[in-house]
This record gives sequence, structure tokens and C-alpha cells, in this order.
Amino acid sequence: MTTIAYLGPVGTYSEMAALQYLQLNHLDQNTTQMCPYSTIPQAINAAEHGNVDIAIVPVENSIQGGVTMTLDSLWQSESLQIQQAIVLPIAHSLITRASTLEAIKIVYSHAQGLAQCQQWLDHHLPTAQQVATNSTTDGLHIVAEDDSVAAIASQRAAELYNLPVLKYPINDQPDNCTRFLVLGRTAPTTKGTHSSLAFSLKRNLPGALVKPLLVFADRQINLSRIESRPTKRSLGEYIFFIDIEAPVDAPNFSEALQQLRAVTEDLKILGSYAIFEI
Amino acid sequence: MTTIAYLGPVGTYSEMAALQYLQLNHLDQNTTQMCPYSTIPQAINAAEHGNVDIAIVPVENSIQGGVTMTLDSLWQSESLQIQQAIVLPIAHSLITRASTLEAIKIVYSHAQGLAQCQQWLDHHLPTAQQVATNSTTDGLHIVAEDDSVAAIASQRAAELYNLPVLKYPINDQPDNCTRFLVLGRTAPTTKGTHSSLAFSLKRNLPGALVKPLLVFADRQINLSRIESRPTKRSLGEYIFFIDIEAPVDAPNFSEALQQLRAVTEDLKILGSYAIFEI
Repeated sequence: MTTIAYLGPVGTYSEMAALQYLQLNHLDQNTTQMCPYSTIPQAINAAEHGNVDIAIVPVENSIQGGVTMTLDSLWQSESLQIQQAIVLPIAHSLITRASTLEAIKIVYSHAQGLAQCQQWLDHHLPTAQQVATNSTTDGLHIVAEDDSVAAIASQRAAELYNLPVLKYPINDQPDNCTRFLVLGRTAPTTKGTHSSLAFSLKRNLPGALVKPLLVFADRQINLSRIESRPTKRSLGEYIFFIDIEAPVDAPNFSEALQQLRAVTEDLKILGSYAIFEI
Repeated sequence: MTTIAYLGPVGTYSEMAALQYLQLNHLDQNTTQMCPYSTIPQAINAAEHGNVDIAIVPVENSIQGGVTMTLDSLWQSESLQIQQAIVLPIAHSLITRASTLEAIKIVYSHAQGLAQCQQWLDHHLPTAQQVATNSTTDGLHIVAEDDSVAAIASQRAAELYNLPVLKYPINDQPDNCTRFLVLGRTAPTTKGTHSSLAFSLKRNLPGALVKPLLVFADRQINLSRIESRPTKRSLGEYIFFIDIEAPVDAPNFSEALQQLRAVTEDLKILGSYAIFEI
């Protein structure tokens, strides 16, 4: 029985990513157990502590950028490895029992869902209160009971909760997609094409960031992404998350890692993995 | 008359940064006009279009990281320059007419305010609904009317709105501070010590990020920060915001900028400015 943690309840985009994971890995729904958690850190901690086999969490949206809670939890983790990445197209619907937009007073969604529909909301529901919930589906039980309330979630969520969709799609950018990470304590089973690292730098060292970047530049190893997160110690100290377009076992890579260790404070290899675009 | 746009209403941390700006620049409150705006992009647009002289906006918090709305608006801007940066310590208070924590059902604050007190909220108000508002002070008129409601804002906000503080400080990290940018259409009047740039890269060019970073590394020009934001075109395309510990007129810099232009798609020099820590 493979147990999978995701940001629930049922009907979230994280659950959709988890269902894609089953298909991609030829897993049987009868021998897997889907475990919804109410926050991203809780889902990641469940995998970290062995309560589940893997956690599937969003890490980056094409419009809103990095999911900071996932990056911060990954940095805290002692044992998790990225096993796969799954890129899912995101199309939001406005789910409500109201028959007109004018009747809607409150809109519930995850902060990322609200942000991804901000222009649409400013234009069509300028006076409605926007309430951020832990997941896109958290507000659906209120939508079921109150005609003046709406939620922004997937069409699948509307079907699962048996609620009507008033408008679809309402995301500001048609090419909205989110990258999810599959995190587990074992090595990935599929051959890696990309790698992710994270490192902090020694305090107050001038030129500190130049050196780790040179390690890659000198070897023509291409970085596809750099994201900085605060160390939470003081302003101006960062943890850098780096995505590399090569597996860890690529030529030059082990030498690069060795050099990287010398010029960073704390270095984590988050995994070598394949990316699947749905 | 100097007109100053900030994220209002009165009592926000942005207003506190604006008041610090007056002091730092020996400006008289009688010859300045403070103009509150209800969103960060609106405040930035007011300065961009000449409706005000300057806008003062948060760009980075030591715990939560970059303020994505500010970075995205800066990238869109055609004419704004960073004139100064002001680092302000942030200490949040729980403002409510409730006499006990148990009586509080809803907590209002800006999403960053909620995030900076997340552990405190999880521990002390685990069942209260958290509602994200446009600014920390937006919820205070509801706090005034409803004893079951609280807001997270500054102690100064509590005084201005004549409301009681139940708990202070409630931020998870004692060293919580936010960096604000002073944006205007003219060149800065104080001598710059730091510079900020932003650039996008040509589409799908392998190794594209290595080249601009090498431009700085080759000249031992130290980057104090890199932050990536999505271009919103497609996943994997980024705008990079770079802070440099040198003014634009430093030795090597003009040569570096020339080379940078050759290896980037679109390059914006956001300004050379002094940083004031309060």
C-alpha cells in the first residue's frame, strides 16, 4: 500500500497532481491510499516522519512564482528527496449557488488562487470580500450553505461537491500552470534529467554569492532557476534554491558539488528527477 | 508641496516608513501631503503617472521574503527610479475589543502580517478564521464594531484608531524587519551605495543565466541578492532582480552594464541609492 500525502481536502489541484502521479507510475488506486492534509507543511512533515510514503506539493506557479511554504519546508527537511516533478495546467472556475455575480459578497480560495484571478476579481467582483483559505476547496462547504458566497477552485472540485460553476475559466493568464514535487525518503525510481540544490552562505562574507555561481558557470552547467528565500535570521541573509538542467551524475557534477561545499555554509542536494508535463 | 503615495489607510507600516522618510530628508509635514492608496500597484502607478511625487512601498521582509506585487510593478514601470531604501523594524500587535483570546473568531491582516505571525496564530488562535486584507489596517473598522474580531497591525495603528492591544509583540521572529523603497521619476538626491537591476533572458537559450552572472563575477562585483519572478509567459521563464553592493558609477560598472545588455533580453536599471536602517 503506497500512502500519498497532499494538500486537501479532495478536489484540490494537489489531489489532481497526485492522481496524475498514479497514472504516470502505473499505480493501482486499490493499492494506494490518498491522505489529505490541511496545510503544505503538514503534508511534507508526514512524509518526512514516515507517516506516509510520499508527499505531493506545489512548488511553483507560472504566474505567482515560488510557493514559499514548500521551499521553506524543503530546507527544514532532513531526509526528503525530490522523486519527480509534475507540471499541471491550472484553470480556475467560480463556484457558487448565486445566479448572478452581483449577489456574491465573499469569495474563498487559497491565496494563490485569489492572486491568479486578481484582475478578473477586480473587474467583475470589485466589492466582494476575498478570504484566503488553506486550500482552494476549504470554502466549498460554505458555498453549499450560503448563496452569497463563491469559491475559486477546479471544475473537478465543483463536480465532487455537487456545486454549480457560474464562470469558467477566470484565471487572468490562459497559460497558467503549476509545478508539483513528489517528495519521498527513498531514491527516485525514474532516471533524473534535472537536479535541485539549496544552500546558505557564510554570514557577511563579501562576494559570497559570486563563488557558488562561478562553480557552475566555469563548467557550463546551466541553471534553469534561482530563487532566494530569507534565512529568517536577518535581512540580507538568504537561502538559494537552484534548479539545474542536468542529473547529479552528469559529467563535472560531482566535482562541482565538492567545490560548492567549500564555498557555501550549508548545502542540501534535494534530488535528481524527471519532469512530466501534463 | 511634496506628495507621497503609500499603502494606506493611516497606521500601516508603509505610512511609518513614509514618516521616517520625512525625518531622514528633513521634510516639513506642512509642505508634504501624504496620499494613502488601497493597493501597492495603485501607489506605484500614482508615482509612475505623476499623480504624486514619490511612492513608498515594501519590497522585502526578513521572514517572508520578496513582496511580489512590488517587484512585478517595478518591472512594468517605464519611468520610476529607486531613490532611497528604508529598513524598518516590524513588531505586530493583536488589536481587539475582546478581553480573552477565546472570544476571537476572525483575525484580519495583510497576508504578510498573517504569515509573520503564523506560528503564534497556530498556537494561540488555532480555530480563528484568518482573513487577508489589502493592508494591515483595513480590518480595524470591523474590530471597532465587533468584539469577536481582531486585527494584526502596529501599536501605532491601535492608538490612531483608539483600539485596545490584547497581545504584543506576536511576530514569530523578534528580528522582523521590512525594507521599503522610495520610488520617484527623478534621480536620487542622496549618494548611492547600492544599485538594483532587473532583466529578462532570451527565450529557451541554454546557459542564458550563466552569462549575466559571469559579467559580475568576472569583475568581482558582489551581488547581495537575486530574486526571480515569473515572466508570466510560461513556466521556466524568469525576470531576475539583482541588488548590487555598489553604485552604478562605481569602477567597472558601466562596462558591466554594456556587457549585460548583450546577454539579456530586456534590462532595466532600477536605480542607485542609499539604504537607511531605522
